[in-house]
Amino acid sequence: MREDYTNQLSEVNDGLIKMSALVGTAIATATTALLHDDLGLAEQVITGDEAINEINHDVEELCFRIAALQAPVATDLRTVMGGIRMSTSLERMGDLAVHIAKQVRLRYPNPSIPSELHATFAEMGEAASKIVEEAGKVIDTRDTDLVEKMRKYDDTLDRLHRELFTVVLSDSWTHGVEAAIDVTLLSRFYERFGDHAVSLARRVIYIVTGEPYANN
Amino acid sequence: MREDYTNQLSEVNDGLIKMSALVGTAIATATTALLHDDLGLAEQVITGDEAINEINHDVEELCFRIAALQAPVATDLRTVMGGIRMSTSLERMGDLAVHIAKQVRLRYPNPSIPSELHATFAEMGEAASKIVEEAGKVIDTRDTDLVEKMRKYDDTLDRLHRELFTVVLSDSWTHGVEAAIDVTLLSRFYERFGDHAVSLARRVIYIVTGEPYANN
Repeated sequence: MREDYTNQLSEVNDGLIKMSALVGTAIATATTALLHDDLGLAEQVITGDEAINEINHDVEELCFRIAALQAPVATDLRTVMGGIRMSTSLERMGDLAVHIAKQVRLRYPNPSIPSELHATFAEMGEAASKIVEEAGKVIDTRDTDLVEKMRKYDDTLDRLHRELFTVVLSDSWTHGVEAAIDVTLLSRFYERFGDHAVSLARRVIYIVTGEPYANN
Repeated sequence: MREDYTNQLSEVNDGLIKMSALVGTAIATATTALLHDDLGLAEQVITGDEAINEINHDVEELCFRIAALQAPVATDLRTVMGGIRMSTSLERMGDLAVHIAKQVRLRYPNPSIPSELHATFAEMGEAASKIVEEAGKVIDTRDTDLVEKMRKYDDTLDRLHRELFTVVLSDSWTHGVEAAIDVTLLSRFYERFGDHAVSLARRVIYIVTGEPYANN
């Protein structure tokens, strides 16, 4: 029974790590689709989300089973309950990558973002890819020192999101209202992506320490 | 032990019902703040969110304890695990009410929305209030027939959100880019509010039937 249990717990972790990798691919691919107005890549992100949702479902079912059959306590209990929460965070991060991809599809064959914002969105995509990569490592290693690194990427996403408002509201913005709404929403998707990653990291800290991690 | 257990399960439900009521007040108050540019009401929503977050934390802790000590199975297990998920949905709905209130605070003493959109946002606020009211009833009664009613309100929110795009992108929109972004974001908060309510309702159906409820 005990061995089964350890196997089940590591199965939860494996699922979460696999989800992190898939979400990493999703956000990187969505960003490439956005920067190159690539419909094929956008569709790939949209259909690929099904695999992420399936693992989410499997992780949840597995956590249910462990809780019912093993009655875990202390750290193991936090792992099981935290597993469900982390899985939810990753699933939502996948959804945000899909939101970006759907925006590309909506505007295709027109570009989704004006060329002068390519650098900004490339930087957002880079920070988002990095933050989920670190999230995967945090889940895998339980090394909570990595969380500070994640916060740095999250700060980058917040800063870029704020800067973008300045750009679309300046007099030099010539792309009209629709494009302004588009880029603000897209930027918000990246910003939210970072928030979910940080919330996931906080969950790992809670699992390891038993203490909730401060919000700021 | 058994009696304790039943008490604990109904404590989870009581927490969720109380959260629904608080979230209902939050979204109604946020809407009033938005329609009347009322900073005091906006602040009330922002500080009031703490109470919602506390119940969320309590419900989660309680579900942890039940799972560990009682090893529930079948419907009871789904109630416990589902309790955590529903609590998360309600907490996020509270956050969305806060997002609306913060937007009011950001623009104060200026109006947050142009007067010709008052009717639209009043209707959104009404649908959002109704959907969370129904959510509370669904949690309380487990009457899954109410879910169809919730979907109707969610459809209203989706429709109003779509219509609003048409308004801000029309030639008759004279309020500029910033106002267009503002109302689009605000509208999105209501639309997301509805989505979370429906996701909560799906969770109840799963608890009652053991079968996942279709996404569409």
